[in-house]
Amino acid sequence: MNVELVSIGDELLLGYTIDTNAAFFAREAAALGIRVVRRATIGDSADDIAAAVREALDRTGAVITSGGLGPTADDLTKPSIAALFGRGMCLDESIVAAMHARWKARGWPGELPAANRAQAMIPEGATILMNAHGSAPGIWLEDAGGRWVAMLPGVPREFRGMTGDTLLPRIRARGATGTVVRSLTLRTTGIAESAVADALGPLAKALDGVSLAYLPGWAGVDLRLTVRDVPPEVASALLAAAAAAVRDRVARWVYGVDEADLSVLVLEALRARSMHIAVAESCTGGMLGMRLTAVPGSSDVVHGGVIAYDDAVKVRDLGVPESTIAAHGAVSEATARAMASGVRTRMGVDVGVSITGVAGPGGGTTEKPVGTFCVGVDVRGEVCSLRTSGVGDRHEIRQRATQAALSLVRKALGD
Amino acid sequence: MNVELVSIGDELLLGYTIDTNAAFFAREAAALGIRVVRRATIGDSADDIAAAVREALDRTGAVITSGGLGPTADDLTKPSIAALFGRGMCLDESIVAAMHARWKARGWPGELPAANRAQAMIPEGATILMNAHGSAPGIWLEDAGGRWVAMLPGVPREFRGMTGDTLLPRIRARGATGTVVRSLTLRTTGIAESAVADALGPLAKALDGVSLAYLPGWAGVDLRLTVRDVPPEVASALLAAAAAAVRDRVARWVYGVDEADLSVLVLEALRARSMHIAVAESCTGGMLGMRLTAVPGSSDVVHGGVIAYDDAVKVRDLGVPESTIAAHGAVSEATARAMASGVRTRMGVDVGVSITGVAGPGGGTTEKPVGTFCVGVDVRGEVCSLRTSGVGDRHEIRQRATQAALSLVRKALGD
Repeated sequence: MNVELVSIGDELLLGYTIDTNAAFFAREAAALGIRVVRRATIGDSADDIAAAVREALDRTGAVITSGGLGPTADDLTKPSIAALFGRGMCLDESIVAAMHARWKARGWPGELPAANRAQAMIPEGATILMNAHGSAPGIWLEDAGGRWVAMLPGVPREFRGMTGDTLLPRIRARGATGTVVRSLTLRTTGIAESAVADALGPLAKALDGVSLAYLPGWAGVDLRLTVRDVPPEVASALLAAAAAAVRDRVARWVYGVDEADLSVLVLEALRARSMHIAVAESCTGGMLGMRLTAVPGSSDVVHGGVIAYDDAVKVRDLGVPESTIAAHGAVSEATARAMASGVRTRMGVDVGVSITGVAGPGGGTTEKPVGTFCVGVDVRGEVCSLRTSGVGDRHEIRQRATQAALSLVRKALGD
Repeated sequence: MNVELVSIGDELLLGYTIDTNAAFFAREAAALGIRVVRRATIGDSADDIAAAVREALDRTGAVITSGGLGPTADDLTKPSIAALFGRGMCLDESIVAAMHARWKARGWPGELPAANRAQAMIPEGATILMNAHGSAPGIWLEDAGGRWVAMLPGVPREFRGMTGDTLLPRIRARGATGTVVRSLTLRTTGIAESAVADALGPLAKALDGVSLAYLPGWAGVDLRLTVRDVPPEVASALLAAAAAAVRDRVARWVYGVDEADLSVLVLEALRARSMHIAVAESCTGGMLGMRLTAVPGSSDVVHGGVIAYDDAVKVRDLGVPESTIAAHGAVSEATARAMASGVRTRMGVDVGVSITGVAGPGGGTTEKPVGTFCVGVDVRGEVCSLRTSGVGDRHEIRQRATQAALSLVRKALGD
């Protein structure tokens, strides 16, 4: 089953916004045997929208648009495509009512703005695609010959949510091919890309029917295995065999598969032991706490923490001896260990974890260049630490430091 | 001057690679008055490449392709487009010689692989575009009517380098129009998109020669003003006039222009007053501290903070009275105020700022639904607070809460 995507918006065409919706849709669709055969990106112009959608309909008969459904005057998708189908526009009272309820539920003052009513105008004969993630509903328009256009909002959260909730099930129900493109990603951390390749040796080029891509990033090096155009059960078997062979060589560094997140794994490891954790952060300034608490339900495990950006906080609120900082420096394993133990005992929890480092761009020295960081973990008095370094800009170095800290917690717990 | 882009590659179409080249090119080109009017993304198929390029040539006569110039069998760009122009392929000895020299210079063993020779095949009558950033040269092919296609490699480093070195100067030399596309963004926060539209009233549709786009996100609603196809001095004048007119209506909510970041503005406001700040975070778990310390050089202003995720931390480490939490709840303006004052006095700084809220997905009540949050600011004993709510998932709600907290700090300082 083939579809085309049309991404709409001057912002995309001018290069102010990167289109991530199209790639997201393609990946999700491939897993269901639905193939994106072409994408077009056009501006907020009624003529261009109509032309691009018409061409795609003529080629493929199945078109998904993103963008141009907002309440403002530059949102032209619905009327342009309605005109292409020879349909007028009409007000849908159910949408007005839903928007009204939403407005009131949020406790916003006054009445629903008039601009919002434009969002309730739909092409005659269209089907509304519910949007549980925002105010603009999606639209499904189909002609007598079965050619269809699905119009989704361009806001990535809404586009993604609706793709999974509504759009893919609907497309899938219309026709399926029996073959799939499927991937499985093994996530590693604490090892460089070239070292992974070395560890894999000949395996890197000899996986039966499976391609291997190295995807290095702040979280580590992801290894993506992909099979294409085979039945689902064959795909599963090939991927499982390849994953087992790869794991065999790099198991030490693999922390999970696909969307696995070290924050989630650390929280699970702590929860299984009925342990609580507190963080002590210097150069990351709260990023580790943010990552742990990004996980819904983390409050049964995460107690709190201290952002010890200034060294005075390390001494006063974490009990790091001034002599430790004087002797080893604020960026040192000794200081990281004292921070971890300090936050553990002062907050009365089982586990303390700390980060101190040089995130840059300034502050580097010959001995401790930008990218150097130390992490410490104290589990009920047993303390370990690690000094390492990461590449990238300030943001990426801080991300790498949080990942190293989480990895060390997991190892300290024996997971 | 209008151009179209055609991005080529199965990886793009499958969604494994996000196309950043197209956005890069559009931004660079706009500054020179060259406008991207449409983009297409297609797979590694000779027919699809020829069809997409033919359509773009028929519309615009000026096409840039990226991708499909590598040494492998799936790289079909050159022969497909040569066929479209009715040209054969021929071996270019200068490219062979350059690749050979490169191979030797790197000290790679043996002879240049045969596969690489395919990269030296070019369409008859083509012009070579030098690539100082990789091995695949670019190709410029033009017909008797002056319609042209420029083929560039898809590797972002190479595409970007060649765009600046070679391609844009060449396009510009062909038809310098003397006109530009230019934008200016007014950044607002604390107001909904539809409310901005209402506040702007008739102005939203009546800005002289300037288009207006609403870009809502967690940071607030950005208002992008764009002028097209006018001389640079006219562009500046039109943008300045439009920005002044828009500001006039929504000044209360505008915090800056273009890439302005509230973290940076708050740090500057504090630095100008020689003030230090500390944060107290509940639902955001460190995100506010992370944002403030994401700015290089923030250490002269940011002292530290307390992540008070568990209510016990609010009481023990911030001195929030248990009675306050009991009477008003942890998510309340009263608690936010006590947190801000607590962190300010305990850390001995000038400004304390706090966040407490319901980030979801669980934990909401009728009175305090998911998305409700309270922020507090204490500036040397003068305390203010705000209760509001934000839409989105957990991450976005937390981002909105940090933005609201930063905005309140700025207002509390009188900026």
